[in-house]
Amino acid sequence: MDNNNNNGTIDYEYPLLERVRTYLRLEHILQALQPATPVTQQNYTRYFSALFAILDLCERSDVRTDVQKDLERRKGQLKVWAQHPDVNQEQLQQTIEQVNQALAAIQPLNRVGSSLKQDRLLSAIRQRFAMPGGTCNFDVPQLHYWLNQPQQVRDNDAARWWNELAVLVGGLTLELELMRGQARFEKVTAVNGMLQESTEPLSLLRIRVSADLPAYPVISGHKQRFNIRFLRYEPENGRASFDQDIEFGLALCP
Amino acid sequence: MDNNNNNGTIDYEYPLLERVRTYLRLEHILQALQPATPVTQQNYTRYFSALFAILDLCERSDVRTDVQKDLERRKGQLKVWAQHPDVNQEQLQQTIEQVNQALAAIQPLNRVGSSLKQDRLLSAIRQRFAMPGGTCNFDVPQLHYWLNQPQQVRDNDAARWWNELAVLVGGLTLELELMRGQARFEKVTAVNGMLQESTEPLSLLRIRVSADLPAYPVISGHKQRFNIRFLRYEPENGRASFDQDIEFGLALCP
Repeated sequence: MDNNNNNGTIDYEYPLLERVRTYLRLEHILQALQPATPVTQQNYTRYFSALFAILDLCERSDVRTDVQKDLERRKGQLKVWAQHPDVNQEQLQQTIEQVNQALAAIQPLNRVGSSLKQDRLLSAIRQRFAMPGGTCNFDVPQLHYWLNQPQQVRDNDAARWWNELAVLVGGLTLELELMRGQARFEKVTAVNGMLQESTEPLSLLRIRVSADLPAYPVISGHKQRFNIRFLRYEPENGRASFDQDIEFGLALCP
Repeated sequence: MDNNNNNGTIDYEYPLLERVRTYLRLEHILQALQPATPVTQQNYTRYFSALFAILDLCERSDVRTDVQKDLERRKGQLKVWAQHPDVNQEQLQQTIEQVNQALAAIQPLNRVGSSLKQDRLLSAIRQRFAMPGGTCNFDVPQLHYWLNQPQQVRDNDAARWWNELAVLVGGLTLELELMRGQARFEKVTAVNGMLQESTEPLSLLRIRVSADLPAYPVISGHKQRFNIRFLRYEPENGRASFDQDIEFGLALCP
């Protein structure tokens, strides 16, 4: 999710579950890894940093299984809703079909990235990307060689790497879309710049603030409890709380 | 130095001194940090990663002092050459003047980056950039706020940050230009894909290989000794030596 202030607002999000935190990180990184962008001498650092960050995250937690379970839960929910007479049946069936397809695609996956770990070029250069300036041509001459090959060579490799991730990305994107679709923005007020609430178990908070407000929200929380505090944006003076009442939009996504 | 195979060759470099290694890393990173490119929602990851990598390198070694000493040495050399009757005096005086200016600018500098360390925004987000996907809006809401401000705000900040580095960058660029100008490419042959040599003390090796060659050079060495070995580029089969005689260009820069 890339939030622009087209309509004079800035959107923030806060995950209340560890696995949602990972989903949002992946979504954030994936913006740098769109398969349509060819890898070149100019953008390769960003590309590989993103690819390796995704592998790091997928090695740390079993994202594939998490997404699968979450989509199954969504499917159950959608079926319950289908009983409801006021619901748009056609749209609902379409969504259920999307979830079914994503689940069928994810089911046979191995742990994501396991075949990328075998890739010679990737494994030779991966640890280098953690070092400042560690991707000079003298550090990784094979990468420099690769970057000087015809674009088609890089396109083929990048397509192969992307294929390893595409199914997971599809499932992840759908799950986040459904999660965000669970709740609308409601107007709330942070009295003296603070809002604290206990709620039913939640996955995600979404916050929509006027772009004119010279403050940003610092959020903490977990599952059934969260705390939003607005801080004044003052790079010179450090963190200063913003002690006025602030009206903003809040969506609580279960 | 960004080496393209415009003329059917690929250039590689190898630093034979630790400080030259740092210079090349900095030069490499600086490509991502050109002051003419505005920082946006799309490119900020690359921008800040580059900025923080430069700060890392400048904290690890005293680049300012190294560049200053090297430029002073170059100046001494240039003055010796000025005694030589065959030399283009006008061009030489111009170069000496450039070196003088770079030295005068570097002299009063504090340790590079010390004032960037005080910057609130930079210090709040710096450690986050080392984490995979660690720059989501929930990790660093103040960065998300900043990215949603008018472009002018970011341009001003980026100009201020760049100013902290500009003098060092100028000196570094000049030193590398002079270093590379010290030697021309000579044709040499790697017998059975290998070349080993002992030489006078050197700063930098430069290697120019035909782009058609399906191999890349792996170089090791230090000061007065280096070893170049060509490896076949075979992502599927791992490292395989390239056992044919290879003619290539080699420049030994003292």
